[in-house]
Amino acid sequence: MAAPVDPRTGLPVVAMVGGGQLARMTHQAAVALGQSLRVLATDPDESAALVAADVRLGDHRSLDDLRAVAAGATVLTFDHEHVPTQHLRALEAEGHRVAPGPAALVHAQDKLVLRRALAEAGEPQPAWVEARTVHDVAAFADEVGWPVVLKTPRGGYDGKGVFVVDGPDEVADLLERHGTLLAEERVAMVRELSAQVARSPFGQVAVWPVVETVQRDGVCAEVLAPAPGLDDALATAAQELAVRIADRLGVVGMLAVELFQTGDGVLVNELAMRPHNSGHWTIDGAVTSQFEQHLRAVLDLPLGDPRPRDRWSVMVNVLGGEYPDLYRSYLHVMARDPGVKVHLYGKGVRPGRKIGHVTVTGDDLGSLRERARHAADFIAGVIDE
Amino acid sequence: MAAPVDPRTGLPVVAMVGGGQLARMTHQAAVALGQSLRVLATDPDESAALVAADVRLGDHRSLDDLRAVAAGATVLTFDHEHVPTQHLRALEAEGHRVAPGPAALVHAQDKLVLRRALAEAGEPQPAWVEARTVHDVAAFADEVGWPVVLKTPRGGYDGKGVFVVDGPDEVADLLERHGTLLAEERVAMVRELSAQVARSPFGQVAVWPVVETVQRDGVCAEVLAPAPGLDDALATAAQELAVRIADRLGVVGMLAVELFQTGDGVLVNELAMRPHNSGHWTIDGAVTSQFEQHLRAVLDLPLGDPRPRDRWSVMVNVLGGEYPDLYRSYLHVMARDPGVKVHLYGKGVRPGRKIGHVTVTGDDLGSLRERARHAADFIAGVIDE
Repeated sequence: MAAPVDPRTGLPVVAMVGGGQLARMTHQAAVALGQSLRVLATDPDESAALVAADVRLGDHRSLDDLRAVAAGATVLTFDHEHVPTQHLRALEAEGHRVAPGPAALVHAQDKLVLRRALAEAGEPQPAWVEARTVHDVAAFADEVGWPVVLKTPRGGYDGKGVFVVDGPDEVADLLERHGTLLAEERVAMVRELSAQVARSPFGQVAVWPVVETVQRDGVCAEVLAPAPGLDDALATAAQELAVRIADRLGVVGMLAVELFQTGDGVLVNELAMRPHNSGHWTIDGAVTSQFEQHLRAVLDLPLGDPRPRDRWSVMVNVLGGEYPDLYRSYLHVMARDPGVKVHLYGKGVRPGRKIGHVTVTGDDLGSLRERARHAADFIAGVIDE
Repeated sequence: MAAPVDPRTGLPVVAMVGGGQLARMTHQAAVALGQSLRVLATDPDESAALVAADVRLGDHRSLDDLRAVAAGATVLTFDHEHVPTQHLRALEAEGHRVAPGPAALVHAQDKLVLRRALAEAGEPQPAWVEARTVHDVAAFADEVGWPVVLKTPRGGYDGKGVFVVDGPDEVADLLERHGTLLAEERVAMVRELSAQVARSPFGQVAVWPVVETVQRDGVCAEVLAPAPGLDDALATAAQELAVRIADRLGVVGMLAVELFQTGDGVLVNELAMRPHNSGHWTIDGAVTSQFEQHLRAVLDLPLGDPRPRDRWSVMVNVLGGEYPDLYRSYLHVMARDPGVKVHLYGKGVRPGRKIGHVTVTGDDLGSLRERARHAADFIAGVIDE
């Protein structure tokens, strides 16, 4: 069966489940390729639904809604990891192309599945154990020491579903509330890195430079591309690790491998199989952005050049502050720094919510960080005039 | 009266008359700024209508349709020059912001109005005369020699409405068919240039490097940014000329000044007051694209940095060929050259129709031109495998 195309243009139709900022930015990339992203959104005011032409309202947990958005699309892909695996299997069985496929995607959905797969592959990761009882956690802590990091296997993001516990007293309550948990050693890390790779069904891969992700309160605050001072051999090792994981799991589309850098190497923290916050810098900083590359990969088109366009790119997330008037804020940011690239997601301002990002590129990392932080703080209303 | 904003985001709403590729690319830029371009299209399958969320169908010659698209928009702007001046005056009288305003825009709509204004300002332009009779043209040719270039004052584009006549015999028929014509000397030119400037109501201007536009059959085929070998003093003079024209005419938004380069300077050919084909290179080649800048200017936001990101940018238009299957073509282009930036407009393929463009940037102009031409030819189907 030939994959469907848009009868008006003869070009493919990518359908994306989820109407957040990742879908919004993927639509921008689709437009350049002559396409128009089809979006399954839960609300007409979602970030991507505000800007895309082909928006279907529905629930990503409903097989019927997924069927409706997949009908006539060349391939179905995702802006989040919350689609049930059995629905994706059903769609595949009905002849729809799904990228990444359910067998790969589950490694980004379930942290226990990921830990087992990495263990089997012999890839570096923190010490871990599946914890069903307080005893499981206590016995693990005897080996690795307290504190122990407990994670819900599914549904966590931006620090949610992650608990650092100092002793056995807090464990029973967490197990009761969440059921089986993933217990991990608390890694003595130098910093966090992200290695992004795109992979097509054909097996072609494209690898961006490894970046440093600076977290604040469990949320990605800042990305430095490439990771400053990263040893060449370690950077290459991290890129090779990401490619091995993409190949082994059969990823199609973007893969972000979030890494802990330790004194003697890297450990895999978790995976995302979609465009990822650690790659937003690629819109302005790389020849091919992660959003265009995701489209090319899920469509099995040849991949674009992932090389950086400048020596450094700095991306800083704009988090909602107390000040709701974005228009006034960005007016002032534009006046202050004509070179900053502003990306706003059309989302209402709520304190701590990711509502946009800014990117600057150039030669002097220190000055770029200062400019990007200042612009992001200003939009968020942290800095008063 | 405060200008309206989008109640869902608190951000401005720019409405653009016309649903072509300029509106399509302006929408891409709007998305980054947290906005969603509102488009007045004549057909749901137009280039911008395929990708924008807020599409109104209607006729740009209908005041009621213009009123409907302007209602609730912060400002009304244009992807073409075909809106009647009296309608724009009516909209302004009703309190709508229109940018550029009708008094400026008429200089991009009517070549005779432009010639008179430039003459009054003492700006360099070809010798010209308003021709109502064969005698007017013959008398003019006595001064400047045959051939003479006859142009319809309104409605011409891409070489349409331009006639090179070698003697008086052809003139009567043209005058009968088109009414009053603009007669111009045929300029002995070295090449064609374009100087682009953005201007905000506040009076801020941003100027891109002067580019060379290579025409084939009256249609822009290729843009080299900056214009190779252009003398610094002449480049600066051309930029200053563009700024003077923008200021004098009160342009708001993008202005492209199309120039003939002669042995001893430049002459103004015509104006466009909107994003222009000679500025498509800025999407990939400049810090701020003409599309983002147009939005910033018409909204009276501070302008972005127009500086180039690489030494050279080469943009080549993709013209429709005999081969209608774009999907297959771009698959091959992507495979051959991962660094080429492909922009397709979602338009059906017709021979000679502008259906997209490609841009490459870098250090070696010769190799960039070869890559860009090859990619464009390949997409158009000129080159068989």
